[in-house]
Amino acid sequence: MTINEMSIGQQASWTKTVTETDVYMFAGITGDLNPAHVNQVASEKTMFKGRIAHGMLGAGFISAVLGMYLPGPGTIYMGQELKFTAPVRIGDTITATGTVAELNLEKNIAKIETVCTNQDGKVVIKGMATVMPPKA
Amino acid sequence: MTINEMSIGQQASWTKTVTETDVYMFAGITGDLNPAHVNQVASEKTMFKGRIAHGMLGAGFISAVLGMYLPGPGTIYMGQELKFTAPVRIGDTITATGTVAELNLEKNIAKIETVCTNQDGKVVIKGMATVMPPKA
Amino acid sequence: MTINEMSIGQQASWTKTVTETDVYMFAGITGDLNPAHVNQVASEKTMFKGRIAHGMLGAGFISAVLGMYLPGPGTIYMGQELKFTAPVRIGDTITATGTVAELNLEKNIAKIETVCTNQDGKVVIKGMATVMPPKA
Amino acid sequence: MTINEMSIGQQASWTKTVTETDVYMFAGITGDLNPAHVNQVASEKTMFKGRIAHGMLGAGFISAVLGMYLPGPGTIYMGQELKFTAPVRIGDTITATGTVAELNLEKNIAKIETVCTNQDGKVVIKGMATVMPPKA
Repeated sequence: MTINEMSIGQQASWTKTVTETDVYMFAGITGDLNPAHVNQVASEKTMFKGRIAHGMLGAGFISAVLGMYLPGPGTIYMGQELKFTAPVRIGDTITATGTVAELNLEKNIAKIETVCTNQDGKVVIKGMATVMPPKA
Repeated sequence: MTINEMSIGQQASWTKTVTETDVYMFAGITGDLNPAHVNQVASEKTMFKGRIAHGMLGAGFISAVLGMYLPGPGTIYMGQELKFTAPVRIGDTITATGTVAELNLEKNIAKIETVCTNQDGKVVIKGMATVMPPKA
Repeated sequence: MTINEMSIGQQASWTKTVTETDVYMFAGITGDLNPAHVNQVASEKTMFKGRIAHGMLGAGFISAVLGMYLPGPGTIYMGQELKFTAPVRIGDTITATGTVAELNLEKNIAKIETVCTNQDGKVVIKGMATVMPPKA
Repeated sequence: MTINEMSIGQQASWTKTVTETDVYMFAGITGDLNPAHVNQVASEKTMFKGRIAHGMLGAGFISAVLGMYLPGPGTIYMGQELKFTAPVRIGDTITATGTVAELNLEKNIAKIETVCTNQDGKVVIKGMATVMPPKA
């Protein structure tokens, strides 16, 4: 989708249930083997009372929305602001939604509001993406 | 590390070579199967001339620095600003470095400047993390 | 095993319990991130009442029987007919069985009836494979 | 997409470069550790002169087209005929294409012609899928 095919308020979403497998593979890929993610005993003693997914794993769902659907293939991802507002637990079903917030046609830059929610509608990540949609 | 054990300018780093395996598993975990990451033929026609890693994969290295070393286990990750300044290619060796930029002892909040560079010293991601260090 | 060492009715089987990990990795490998496989919330609303494995994952067990045991290494897999007769759920223990149905010695082509059953004996996949056994 | 939204000749495709990682993970998931797929020394002595991907891995790309795009989420996969016409090698970029061939509105059953080609346009798998599109 080029910037001319986009409009303010336009939305796309992507949903997946986060599994233990996802968290463990993500830990291995990134090297983030923080006990909060891979140590059940230690994590039970934290305020989260058990292992949680990496915030950046949820952020990866945002990347999926931008790169696959809105604007989709050919998009250049320039930047992302993220606030991690609630933990993602193993077994949570996370929906990432992008909503077009701003379009700069001259510079070919779009701002897309990005929100991840869980199965209860609770916001777990929010922020803003800056992308260059494909030119053709 | 508690906030009292931290000081402005303090640094920690984490380095790993990004492989095709990392990129493909990341794609499956996040659902971001954008052709830029998994289609050699299409990606060769882009400005990047081949497949590149997901920006969020590099961002995951930042998460590793924060959660493993600075401040380390027990840290609560509140937010992250990211600018993707250059592509990460399969085979690149990426170093994520965190540098303590700001300490709010009262609120127990630290700002950590975060930079990812490749083997040539080129900055591929930069930004700022906001974290709550562990209390004890 | 060459075609001369095979006989009508000869059988081989391969059994494995299908895990969530298997389903999630299969989704990433193939790009089939259909909600039926990776979205617990959406899949609960389907007639299957939860996530199911990919049909082709079960079909891969048939490929294992043919390539590993009957006729085994060196076999050329020419074709496969598949009917997906019941869902494979996460945790199901699936047995793929091949039974030699037809031998064409002149053309070196064998037809092998292929059935996958779950732990309750229910047929989940059935069909017919066409293979060229190794010559020596 | 319901059967009423489908039309003869309608197409959808999905493309991905097949990597060694894909082949090895597929081998582990299915148990098909045939030397043709995971033994470089033995596979070099075969007519394929090296390791090849599992035929069913390519067939999984067909499943992705059906489950993700045509007809898409909610589809019930009833059956598939497959002919493996040429090997898929590590590094090949495979495109699976589905083309609607037959629509039985009364029984809600669609036949979709399925073809996988490599980066050179060579057909590696062909066949026919039988699916029930979602009802709403």
